[in-house]
Amino acid sequence: MNGKTEYADLTHILNPKCVAIIGASEKQGKVGQAIMQNYIDAGFAGGLYPVNISATGKIMGHQAYKSILDIGRPIDLAVISIPAPAVPKALEECGKAKVKGVVIVTAGFAEVGNVELQEQLVRIAKKYKLPVIGPNCLGVMDPRSRSDTLFLPTFKIDKPNVGGISFVSQSGSVGSSTLDLISGEGLGLARFISYGNAAVVDEVDILNFLAHDPDTKVIVFYLEGVKRGKEFIEVAKKTTKIKPIVILKGGVTESGAGAAHSHTASLAGSAQAYEAVFEQFGFTIARSLEELLYFAKVFDTQPLPKGNRVAIITNGGGHGVIATDAVYQNGLVLPELSKPTQAALRKVMPPIVNIRLPLDIGGDADGKRYSDAFELLSNDQNIDMVMAIVLFQTPGADEGVAETVAKYMAMKNKALVAVSTGGSYTKSHVAVMESQGVPVYDSPNDAAAALAALYKYAKYKMSGK
Amino acid sequence: MNGKTEYADLTHILNPKCVAIIGASEKQGKVGQAIMQNYIDAGFAGGLYPVNISATGKIMGHQAYKSILDIGRPIDLAVISIPAPAVPKALEECGKAKVKGVVIVTAGFAEVGNVELQEQLVRIAKKYKLPVIGPNCLGVMDPRSRSDTLFLPTFKIDKPNVGGISFVSQSGSVGSSTLDLISGEGLGLARFISYGNAAVVDEVDILNFLAHDPDTKVIVFYLEGVKRGKEFIEVAKKTTKIKPIVILKGGVTESGAGAAHSHTASLAGSAQAYEAVFEQFGFTIARSLEELLYFAKVFDTQPLPKGNRVAIITNGGGHGVIATDAVYQNGLVLPELSKPTQAALRKVMPPIVNIRLPLDIGGDADGKRYSDAFELLSNDQNIDMVMAIVLFQTPGADEGVAETVAKYMAMKNKALVAVSTGGSYTKSHVAVMESQGVPVYDSPNDAAAALAALYKYAKYKMSGK
Repeated sequence: MNGKTEYADLTHILNPKCVAIIGASEKQGKVGQAIMQNYIDAGFAGGLYPVNISATGKIMGHQAYKSILDIGRPIDLAVISIPAPAVPKALEECGKAKVKGVVIVTAGFAEVGNVELQEQLVRIAKKYKLPVIGPNCLGVMDPRSRSDTLFLPTFKIDKPNVGGISFVSQSGSVGSSTLDLISGEGLGLARFISYGNAAVVDEVDILNFLAHDPDTKVIVFYLEGVKRGKEFIEVAKKTTKIKPIVILKGGVTESGAGAAHSHTASLAGSAQAYEAVFEQFGFTIARSLEELLYFAKVFDTQPLPKGNRVAIITNGGGHGVIATDAVYQNGLVLPELSKPTQAALRKVMPPIVNIRLPLDIGGDADGKRYSDAFELLSNDQNIDMVMAIVLFQTPGADEGVAETVAKYMAMKNKALVAVSTGGSYTKSHVAVMESQGVPVYDSPNDAAAALAALYKYAKYKMSGK
Repeated sequence: MNGKTEYADLTHILNPKCVAIIGASEKQGKVGQAIMQNYIDAGFAGGLYPVNISATGKIMGHQAYKSILDIGRPIDLAVISIPAPAVPKALEECGKAKVKGVVIVTAGFAEVGNVELQEQLVRIAKKYKLPVIGPNCLGVMDPRSRSDTLFLPTFKIDKPNVGGISFVSQSGSVGSSTLDLISGEGLGLARFISYGNAAVVDEVDILNFLAHDPDTKVIVFYLEGVKRGKEFIEVAKKTTKIKPIVILKGGVTESGAGAAHSHTASLAGSAQAYEAVFEQFGFTIARSLEELLYFAKVFDTQPLPKGNRVAIITNGGGHGVIATDAVYQNGLVLPELSKPTQAALRKVMPPIVNIRLPLDIGGDADGKRYSDAFELLSNDQNIDMVMAIVLFQTPGADEGVAETVAKYMAMKNKALVAVSTGGSYTKSHVAVMESQGVPVYDSPNDAAAALAALYKYAKYKMSGK
């Protein structure tokens, strides 16, 4: 909150008991209608209070009020979606009504040059010590509390599972499409925050809140610019000591920065400057939208490894070769198996299996053979992480193998990722593994990059910087 | 064929009229059963002749023979799946029967040290000038002729669409899983060839054949090693003058090469040596399994661009920023729009739209607005390629937009790629675009890499090297 972080408590915005929708409407196509519908469809269990200056009677089955001051009950979150010129007055009333947090989705402020109108909001928020997200934003979604201010057609976005990933995006479109992707892939969401113009609550406040949020296991940021760079770094430094931050920086080329400036009016710095700073403070840098998710899912589900030694188990030789290349290209290594592990594997594996890493257990490998391999590798002190490649096109790979991989998620002393490449039959088995928390990747390259991100962060954390 | 390319005609293997399955069986789990079933299930229209030394009567409804010599009709393709020691005799009989091509799926030759047994096959093939694929391979699949020697459970692999991508893999597991991925993604396959030990027909022969194959628009290779390096380069040099070759090299790190050696007994060279040679001769180098497909689909569907100037159209600002970064990071540029295009866009776009690239046409953009943008950009001589970002989470993006993008596939003077990020609603619309031949990517990063591959190859071809 622009230097005054002491009152940026987002708890009531993300987990409200009572919500007022200022600008609520029954008219299809209105933002206030979409938001009301969201809370109703999501089965939000708290109180829902539509506010509309021309309200009489009920809106969508809920008693409506002309002003938030008329409700006469404590409101945790007010969502404002009325025309921009009317927003300051509504915000002032939120302050008077002792609302605990506000999301302003309305656009038409600094991003189109109405700087003074936005400054009015800032002054009111400061006066009442109101945490305000926005304006010009999608707002928040919290799958636990079912607080959801996104005003997009609900049938267009998959609903997320509950999990440990908190996704923060200045950009609404990156926010909503990535949220949809997170949901479509079955990943677990803790908090979603799209904060738009950041007039009051900004990146620093959000990072600060998520750092201390017990539901957030990994913080994932799409960031175009930072207003309070120094404070951001201060908070980030403390945060990466507690939990990982994965970040995709938009506007890292000169032209990209130009596009970012015209997009959110934020000043994007150079790629080098950001990356150097980010790396120094233990950030995990994603270089594409995919990497954001690839890294997020491994951090959400896997323990931090003690070293960079990877065991590859595969039922396909070619994938073993590609995975080995990818492991080394990402700064990880395939260790030598310990002598006892070698001897034990020799006993249970068919004679044709070469007892070394990558461990190619054969195109006919079934659940039993995978289980034997996992069991022995999980006890080998030379191994920190396991990449299990399961190609479901082979005769032996079936439900049994998917369940074996899921079972060895319990192998909590080592990080585990799986790789399965294929079409519909494969995807149905990937879903089984992912539903049990195994991070599954299409290719060995992505899996190796994810393990490398995990190791790099673990190393940073162990270094005690 | 190890220096004698004159008789490596694979036409009859890929497009046979009559097929003999040596080792055909009714016994579930037998390779000879799976192959018979494949030809029957695929609706192969030619003659199908099961051969089994202990045959009496019919196998799976087809008259069976004890030897291929007993059939008494010209056979185009013989598929051999009998125990290794019996293969030389069967191959000799194929020669005598004047078979036009052979696929030996049986394993147990040079890859397990039986070098002399494999040499016998080579001698017989040479004697009869028989093109032989294998041994120790999955063989071929051709979706036009429905010739399919893959002996994997059919329910585990999606069936491919007919198209222009020919995929060649030494490795059976990379082959089958990538084939499954190609099919699952709805890409168009011309030929699939998994050639195993390459005892007779090798990389050089296959490349030579595909170079002249009118059904093959792009050749995609997963390669661990090349036996006849010099000849391979000779043929490749000629091929890239005609059509693109996309290649993923396995075993590019020292450890990866070690794994490759124990996998297919091929000698993998260093990454640098390969890449330098490959680039010099106009190969498109993929660095992951995903890139193989990302590049293949743009080559299969899009015209070669005349320059490196990309127009980005987007309904999401953040994606525009990420795409701009990705374009520049891949050596492409966003040009200035020509004055007439600027003026024309100004007339049809809402006032809030900033008339520059990336062209952010707004979160409320519908089919009409995309259509207007495409129409004007397609006439701009400053533009060589178009990246259309469509985020289907927004209120305006629906069937109409998907159809507009598909329609502008007809904009054949410029290459077009689309980007759509999201879950189930998005995926259903991606399917519409892809069914009309638009290459769609999850992220701007992948789309930019694909356009860059297209441009790089176009530049190589134009250079007339």
